[in-house]
Amino acid sequence: MARKISRNTFIMDSPPTIRSFSSTVGKKEGEGPLSQYFDEIEQDAYFGQKTWEQAESELMKRTVVRAVSKAGISNDEVDYMFAGDLLNQCISSTYGLRDLNIPLLGLYGACSTMSEGLVLASLMTDSGLGENIAAVTSSHFCTAERQFRFPLSYGSVRTPTAQWTCTASGAVVLSPKTTSPFIRAATIGKIVDMGVTDANNMGAAMAPAAAYVIKTFLHDTSMSPSDFDAIVTGDLGKVGSELLTELLQSEGIDISAQHKDCGVMMFDLEAQDVHAGGSGCGCSASVLCGYFLPKIRTGEMKNILFCATGALMSPTASQQGESIPSISHAVFISAESSTGGGQ
Amino acid sequence: MARKISRNTFIMDSPPTIRSFSSTVGKKEGEGPLSQYFDEIEQDAYFGQKTWEQAESELMKRTVVRAVSKAGISNDEVDYMFAGDLLNQCISSTYGLRDLNIPLLGLYGACSTMSEGLVLASLMTDSGLGENIAAVTSSHFCTAERQFRFPLSYGSVRTPTAQWTCTASGAVVLSPKTTSPFIRAATIGKIVDMGVTDANNMGAAMAPAAAYVIKTFLHDTSMSPSDFDAIVTGDLGKVGSELLTELLQSEGIDISAQHKDCGVMMFDLEAQDVHAGGSGCGCSASVLCGYFLPKIRTGEMKNILFCATGALMSPTASQQGESIPSISHAVFISAESSTGGGQ
Repeated sequence: MARKISRNTFIMDSPPTIRSFSSTVGKKEGEGPLSQYFDEIEQDAYFGQKTWEQAESELMKRTVVRAVSKAGISNDEVDYMFAGDLLNQCISSTYGLRDLNIPLLGLYGACSTMSEGLVLASLMTDSGLGENIAAVTSSHFCTAERQFRFPLSYGSVRTPTAQWTCTASGAVVLSPKTTSPFIRAATIGKIVDMGVTDANNMGAAMAPAAAYVIKTFLHDTSMSPSDFDAIVTGDLGKVGSELLTELLQSEGIDISAQHKDCGVMMFDLEAQDVHAGGSGCGCSASVLCGYFLPKIRTGEMKNILFCATGALMSPTASQQGESIPSISHAVFISAESSTGGGQ
Repeated sequence: MARKISRNTFIMDSPPTIRSFSSTVGKKEGEGPLSQYFDEIEQDAYFGQKTWEQAESELMKRTVVRAVSKAGISNDEVDYMFAGDLLNQCISSTYGLRDLNIPLLGLYGACSTMSEGLVLASLMTDSGLGENIAAVTSSHFCTAERQFRFPLSYGSVRTPTAQWTCTASGAVVLSPKTTSPFIRAATIGKIVDMGVTDANNMGAAMAPAAAYVIKTFLHDTSMSPSDFDAIVTGDLGKVGSELLTELLQSEGIDISAQHKDCGVMMFDLEAQDVHAGGSGCGCSASVLCGYFLPKIRTGEMKNILFCATGALMSPTASQQGESIPSISHAVFISAESSTGGGQ
C-alpha cells in the first residue's frame, strides 16, 4: 500500500509494474535520432482521418489499444484509464477513447499529463484499487499549431526559443508488482509561475516547476542525483534545460550529469529545424514509452526520475497579458522493486 | 482502506469525512429558489476583475479559500487538490489557484468534474494518502457563452432545449473519517455517446451517461433507489432529466421519486427565462456544497447519490459534425459511516 512520507511525496510499498507500454509518432519524429525506438511511425499526418483533431484522436486510440494488446488483456480487463491532451476540452482523449468501453478519469496537466497519469495510476494500483489501469496522452503538431499559435497556412516565422509540438503518443498499463519496470515513488507538483509571458519560450516558463518537483522529490526521499541513470524532463527544450540546471545548481543540486530532456532528445535540433526542441504531451510520453522503459526492462538503465512538465497557459490568457503558470510531477521508475534488492 | 468491488466501483472501508464545503454563485443564481443556501452571492459579474476569465478564476479561488478556512486549516495544511473547469486549458483553475501554494492535480471532466474530484479525493483519503485533500470546480456564464456559443454582444436567440451556464463554484476539503457527511462508495463512469449532435440539447446527450453510472452503482452495491433521499444529477436540465428517468425505467429501475437535477433546482425555469435549466461545472458543485451537504450534516437527509454529468464536446468537434460524448461518476454521500450504524 502506498505511503505518504511528506505533504506530496509517496513511496510505493509494493511497487506497481508498468506491465506494458506503447509509443506512436509522426513522420518528422520518426526521422529524428530516436527513430529506431518507437513502436510505430505513421507517415500520414492525417492518420487516415479527415481532420487534424480526428487524426490526433486516432493516434491516441491506436497507442492505448496497442498498450492493452501488449499487456495480453482485452479492453474489458482494463479497470479504468487516465487520459488527457492539449486540445480545448481534451477532445483527442474523449473522441479517441469513447469507443473503447473503458471507464475514464480525464486529466488536464498540459505536457505534464503523462507524469500526472503515472502518479495517479501508481497510487491507485499500490492501494489495491486496480488490476490494470491505463494512462495515455498525445499531441499533434497540426492541432496544436492552429489552436495555440497560427493556422499552418499562414507560414509564420518561428522564434529561436520556440519549440515544435510533437505528433506523438505514449500509453502504459499498470498492474500490481510482478516484474520490472516498477514505479517506486512519486511527488505531486505545484504550480510555479515566475512571470514569464513569452508563449514562444515555454521552456523558460516550465523550468522552475521542474526544479521545484525535482528538489522536493530528492529532499523527501533523501535521494541524490547520482542515484539515477537519468533525470528526465518533459519538454523544456534547449533553453529551458539550461535554465533548469542553473536553477538547481543555485540550490546546491547538480543534475548536469543525469539530466535528459525529451524535447531535446526527440529531434536533431539543427538539422530538423526545430529551434529549441520538441514539446507537447506526446513528446515525453512517447520518449518514455519508446526509449526509457525498454532500457529499464532490459536492465540497461536502473533508475530514472521522470518529470513531464506542463505550461498551463491558453491563447486567451496570453492575449490578456497573463504569464505562464507551469507544473511538473515526479515519478521514480526503477528496474528493482527495492533498494539493493532484486525484484 | 478503499476496496474495489467491481471493475469500477469502490467501497470506503473507513468513509472519509467531507470536513468542509463552500459555495459561491453569481447574481442570477442568487435570485433563484436556492438563494438562501449559498455562502456568497456576488452581484458583480466581473468579481472585481478586468476580464471574464479573471472573474471565473477569482470565483474559484474565493470558494476554495473559504472551504480551507472553514476546515480551520491553512493552505499549507492542504496536502493537494483536484481542480478543473470548462475553459480551454482549464485556465480558471490554473490562474485561480496558482498563488495558493497547494500541489495540484488538474482534471478535465466538463460538468462531471465535481464528481470526478470527489471520487479521486475520497479514494486517496481512504487509502491513507492525504489528511486534507481539496476538490473544486467552477463555471461562469460569460466565459462559457463566448467560448462555447456566441459572444454575448451578439444577443443570440436561445433554443427551448438550451441550458444556462451557471456562474458558480463549489469546493470541499476531505479528511479521514470523523463526522458526517461521509463518502461511502463511488463508481467511475465511462464515456457514453448515443449520437446526439445538438450542442443546444446537452441534457439529452448526457442522460445516457448518467443512466449508465446510476445503474452500475446500484447493481455493484446491491442498493436500490429507495435507499436514497435523493439521486442527484449534475445538470441534465428539464429535457435530460425526463430522458434519464425513462432510460432507467426501461431497465426496470425507477428513480422518479428520488431524482433531483441541480440544473433544474438552480433556477425558476420560467420566471428566470433559462429554458431547460442551469448547467456548467459550478452548477452541481455549488448545489451540492450549498444545499445537499448541509442537509446531510444536520441529518435532514441521510443518503444521496451524487452524479455530476459532463458533456465532453468542444466547438471544434461540433463544427466537424461530431456527436457529444458524455460521462458521469457516482458518489454515495451519507450521514452515517455504515449501514444501520451511527458514526
